[in-house]
Amino acid sequence: MNEQKTLSEAFNRTAYRLSGQGLRNVEVLKSVLEQVEGSLESDIYGKGQVIEEFQSEMAAYLGKESAVFFPSGTMAQQIALRIWCDEGNLKQVAYHPLSHLEIHEEDGLKELHGIKPVLLADKDRLITLEDVRNLREDIACLLLELPQREIGGQLPEYSELEAISAYCREKGIKLHLDGARLFEILPYYQKSAAEVCALFDSVYVSFYKTIGGIAGAILAGDADFTEKSKVWKRRHGGDLISLYPYILSSAHYFKERIGKMEQYYRDAVRLAECFNACTRVNTRPAVPVSNMFHVHFDAPKAKVEPVLIELCEASGIGITGNVREFDGDTSYFELSVGDMYSQVPEEKREAMFRMLDARLREM
Amino acid sequence: MNEQKTLSEAFNRTAYRLSGQGLRNVEVLKSVLEQVEGSLESDIYGKGQVIEEFQSEMAAYLGKESAVFFPSGTMAQQIALRIWCDEGNLKQVAYHPLSHLEIHEEDGLKELHGIKPVLLADKDRLITLEDVRNLREDIACLLLELPQREIGGQLPEYSELEAISAYCREKGIKLHLDGARLFEILPYYQKSAAEVCALFDSVYVSFYKTIGGIAGAILAGDADFTEKSKVWKRRHGGDLISLYPYILSSAHYFKERIGKMEQYYRDAVRLAECFNACTRVNTRPAVPVSNMFHVHFDAPKAKVEPVLIELCEASGIGITGNVREFDGDTSYFELSVGDMYSQVPEEKREAMFRMLDARLREM
Repeated sequence: MNEQKTLSEAFNRTAYRLSGQGLRNVEVLKSVLEQVEGSLESDIYGKGQVIEEFQSEMAAYLGKESAVFFPSGTMAQQIALRIWCDEGNLKQVAYHPLSHLEIHEEDGLKELHGIKPVLLADKDRLITLEDVRNLREDIACLLLELPQREIGGQLPEYSELEAISAYCREKGIKLHLDGARLFEILPYYQKSAAEVCALFDSVYVSFYKTIGGIAGAILAGDADFTEKSKVWKRRHGGDLISLYPYILSSAHYFKERIGKMEQYYRDAVRLAECFNACTRVNTRPAVPVSNMFHVHFDAPKAKVEPVLIELCEASGIGITGNVREFDGDTSYFELSVGDMYSQVPEEKREAMFRMLDARLREM
Repeated sequence: MNEQKTLSEAFNRTAYRLSGQGLRNVEVLKSVLEQVEGSLESDIYGKGQVIEEFQSEMAAYLGKESAVFFPSGTMAQQIALRIWCDEGNLKQVAYHPLSHLEIHEEDGLKELHGIKPVLLADKDRLITLEDVRNLREDIACLLLELPQREIGGQLPEYSELEAISAYCREKGIKLHLDGARLFEILPYYQKSAAEVCALFDSVYVSFYKTIGGIAGAILAGDADFTEKSKVWKRRHGGDLISLYPYILSSAHYFKERIGKMEQYYRDAVRLAECFNACTRVNTRPAVPVSNMFHVHFDAPKAKVEPVLIELCEASGIGITGNVREFDGDTSYFELSVGDMYSQVPEEKREAMFRMLDARLREM
């Protein structure tokens, strides 16, 4: 705990960073509001220009009839699954064992909605068409997360995705997209967001991952679905009188960064090569399919952390602020490329990787 | 609908207003952030200086062991009742028929938590000790709203409140305070917030009523209770990565306005006298016990609205932007005194009331 804090502190003090969009401080919001007229009226309980315009913009971008802004994806996704369960009159859904709903939400889906999840696939691989075909229990909805974050941001081939979608439609299973990082995968698939979303009945996207907003999510689908989602949003306590701090920042950074996803993805591919060239290191996926990947060390956290702290101080480059234990005596961290990466001078980055390799070789 | 919009528009164009803290526009947040250093770090999922300091400050102010910041009161209160129901192993609570939970939350308490409410007292009066004594069903928790907003912001005598609290303790019934407007009643009771809260096991307060923040709430109680509330907050999707836009504005306007509650209350008493002196008008309560009251017209909404629009334009003073139908051919609106009131020049206000009286007399 103490060591982790020290790595985090060392990371926060660096002049350069391999990952992210910069520190999550109040400046992120201040710089948005400096460009907004003070006379702009607040949204009021889901109504008003500021929220309705952004919802329309996102519905169009995602190719869906309607979209609703939510304070969080946790809220949006539980609600999506609840609506599909109610419609199917069946309180059972399927998702990956490492889905956000399963490991990060304190079982809200079960405790609040009484929905039982069927866990598909093994923890360390993607859900396949075969998994869906072999389901032994009826489900109202299948949730797919693209990319599958907890295994490094892996993606199925697009044809597999199309086949799963077709199978679900045939069987009357609703398909929901956990698109927390949807924007980030479009360069790899070479598809528009609307093309990917057309495979799904409902879609959630987030604005504080690579987009770099403050918080907030969009849930999109047909109008009947989104109208129901507004009722559940109120029930959850998410229909706030004012959501504009999140909406304005989402809209601002979406506009600023949506065009950079291709660059972030290319940078991630190059950066993963640098890591894979180091002793005791491999990335997951070996070749990234988005701007994110996991860096695995064949060394325990207790040995890796001091090296990373030393590198922060010696090179001025922060690699990560948070290393986690993994199976056996190994460890890993998650990396998502954003604006920070391209600010790192090339020679500094190369020197840093030489130093990293040397330190890991000494272990 | 069309007429109501017109009144709302006329109200928004006035230079002076009897009620409120001003327009809910982005300037409300901009002016807060101008006084905050951009380098201040965001709260992260409920942790960090910005959220922990404010929670500690509010716990101390409310005289409770611990406090948790929530995006909304809807979320905070459902969670409070759920915790008490789980503790009592009984999914039944009691509250007023016009409680926020009953009329403004799309039955979230029932739909998400499976909790059954017992409605105490008639719609048009306060809950009394007698009502609680005569309860025929077991309840885990009694929720009292102080003041009872939907009936004009009425309050029980403090001795009645003490008696209800003592009775609940004796019977093992948890007592929860819906203190959406707790700050506003302290001048009438001549009690500190901590003194009032000591009568309750858990307390919710709001920061976008008279305090005038953007959104947000505090739920306070003992540490075991608030720890549980954090788990439920995550389940509800309210444990946002960043709540600082709401926290910073809550802290800012709390500091700016908490000392003005006495003045708002005194102003409300004087203002109610002016309304009660008009033909066809009476306020509820007749003498306010906080900064809020309802103004009832012995005339239908369709006749009252054009008069109020005319007054906006003729006097430059906005009385209200929203008149509602009431029993039979009567109508009413809600008024809460804030900073706007004292900016209205006295002679303009007097002239406006003479005009209002004349118009209502002509009906």
